[in-house]
Amino acid sequence: MASLDLRSDPVDLTAALVDVPSSSGEEAALADAVEAALRVQAPHLEVVRHGDAVLARTDLGRAERVVLAGHLDTVPVNHNLPSHRTGSGEDEVLHGLGSVDMKGGDAVFLHLAATVPEPRHDVTFVFYDCEEVEAARNGLGRIERELPEWLRGDLAVVGEPSNAVVEAGCQGTMRVELRLAGTRAHTARAWMGDNAVHALAEPLRRLAEYEARVVEIDGLTYREGLQAVRVEGGVAGNVVPDEAVLAVNHRFAPDVTAERAEAHLREVFDGYDLTVVDCSPGALPGLAAPPAAELVRAAGGQVAAKLGWTDVARFAALGMPAVNLGPGDPTLAHTRQENVPAWQVRRVTQVLRQLLAG
Amino acid sequence: MASLDLRSDPVDLTAALVDVPSSSGEEAALADAVEAALRVQAPHLEVVRHGDAVLARTDLGRAERVVLAGHLDTVPVNHNLPSHRTGSGEDEVLHGLGSVDMKGGDAVFLHLAATVPEPRHDVTFVFYDCEEVEAARNGLGRIERELPEWLRGDLAVVGEPSNAVVEAGCQGTMRVELRLAGTRAHTARAWMGDNAVHALAEPLRRLAEYEARVVEIDGLTYREGLQAVRVEGGVAGNVVPDEAVLAVNHRFAPDVTAERAEAHLREVFDGYDLTVVDCSPGALPGLAAPPAAELVRAAGGQVAAKLGWTDVARFAALGMPAVNLGPGDPTLAHTRQENVPAWQVRRVTQVLRQLLAG
Repeated sequence: MASLDLRSDPVDLTAALVDVPSSSGEEAALADAVEAALRVQAPHLEVVRHGDAVLARTDLGRAERVVLAGHLDTVPVNHNLPSHRTGSGEDEVLHGLGSVDMKGGDAVFLHLAATVPEPRHDVTFVFYDCEEVEAARNGLGRIERELPEWLRGDLAVVGEPSNAVVEAGCQGTMRVELRLAGTRAHTARAWMGDNAVHALAEPLRRLAEYEARVVEIDGLTYREGLQAVRVEGGVAGNVVPDEAVLAVNHRFAPDVTAERAEAHLREVFDGYDLTVVDCSPGALPGLAAPPAAELVRAAGGQVAAKLGWTDVARFAALGMPAVNLGPGDPTLAHTRQENVPAWQVRRVTQVLRQLLAG
Repeated sequence: MASLDLRSDPVDLTAALVDVPSSSGEEAALADAVEAALRVQAPHLEVVRHGDAVLARTDLGRAERVVLAGHLDTVPVNHNLPSHRTGSGEDEVLHGLGSVDMKGGDAVFLHLAATVPEPRHDVTFVFYDCEEVEAARNGLGRIERELPEWLRGDLAVVGEPSNAVVEAGCQGTMRVELRLAGTRAHTARAWMGDNAVHALAEPLRRLAEYEARVVEIDGLTYREGLQAVRVEGGVAGNVVPDEAVLAVNHRFAPDVTAERAEAHLREVFDGYDLTVVDCSPGALPGLAAPPAAELVRAAGGQVAAKLGWTDVARFAALGMPAVNLGPGDPTLAHTRQENVPAWQVRRVTQVLRQLLAG
């Protein structure tokens, strides 16, 4: 079994985690190493193995509890293992699969688990499996169903890459489909038909001209969006199409409920046959309450709005403030050239140590 | 082998042809019956078997030659065999696969082959295979390559259903593709991308507002058309699409060359990346020269513009006037309920007998 030194520099620990391959469904070796390291090097924690997830927590009777959650799995290997480094000092960079998404965040959490034995807040660590595959397999979902008390707390920090900046709240996402109907005809007698694809001109014009809201909430700026993500239509090369489908993805700020978002889309596409395909509501940042406010102070007051939808929303749905904070540029996630600047790993460690150790 | 009585009423003969199944590629039995009937019942004709096509002609040294062409194949059986009849007198209707497309026309030609032994014009009969499948298998194309002299003449009549009205000339057809490019991005950060599907709004608006030309040529009215036939775009439910494709079918009157039609589309879609996918030029009616003018007189002067593209265009491309004249409603072709009014079979017989026998 791979041996992990949780007290080592978090950048070295990130490299050690990267070098234990753990694509989704194959996290056992890494979970074994994490579990063994926690049991030996963080004896102050209660440790539970749950499938290929590893859970650990303090029980110091503190007023508040912070949950630190990170997935152990990566997307499949793509000629980007083992890890290697380039540069030095401020320019030091660690390259390799998972360096961004999200073994950098895992390394920070594991390092704190071993080096802050008496945190100011109770802490729960959740290292889980199968985040990179379909939602039904997500380890966090399994824990939520089977060990729900392990996810409860007053603040959740998910270590997904955020360029080492606290990202708070979460926009909602809704997908809808517009179905346009026409009348089929031979293109040589087109006037006998009614072209459903031509009818897309108007809803596409509305999309192209749509001005997305920019919303300030608790000092954070959320940018909404309304984008066609798929268009389809056509029967044959000589047939006037009688059906066209336009799929649209709406991202909405967390001050809007799913119901209001749907009503808004029905206004935008008034006159069209609209079906909601799926919807995940957003989450308000909720940064006023401790210990979320302390985290913001520890981060020097630098907080950004979370625009995408991540597992942060699962915690938000449980009614607790939830933020994203991890090293690495999220746009490098899932790319062959994943790499994380060493300073970001150290920066996240410093911010969270400030939160937990004061 | 099925026995055909070519001297019988053309409606009875249509029923006999319908009752010999001949979906594309399986025309052998019908071709055998047609060949045997012509050899025995039209001994004045030179008969040649060519694959599952049957060719027959007079060689009387007339000044002009008329080519009568019909395909023997049908689309696949669809619970519409054997034939049956409804009504009587003016309302008599023959039902069954191929009654419209186009054994009614074949029956008329076969009847004339046997009953007009000394026509005023030399006549070539072409009964061919595989018209209902991909162009590469079309029997007429094979004859054009291997026995081209059998298609030459001063007028071609293709017996495809035309409601017993002479349809002359042929519109051209051109398919083009517009490719719209954008920039891919996550829909949560849509402003970093450029949505190629949204960009379809403008070319679709031009299509929806396009006013197709209506053109008079030799007294015939051609109606052009410009129709989207396919639209495609989309990467994933959370991705701003970076490509969209719009396929458009243009039908153009025969006073426009393929080159001018393409130039026109490049004007209509100015500013867009346009590729011509395929093109078949139209054919001018050319009804002034004998014996085409005689056919128009025989039809009582009633002639319509041919809007679709049929094998008529193959003859037009050989430089001869070519018309479509056959019993049956073309909109019933390829439907389960194919049926032909008996009077239309008799009407086409009468018009062509007038042309050939005077």
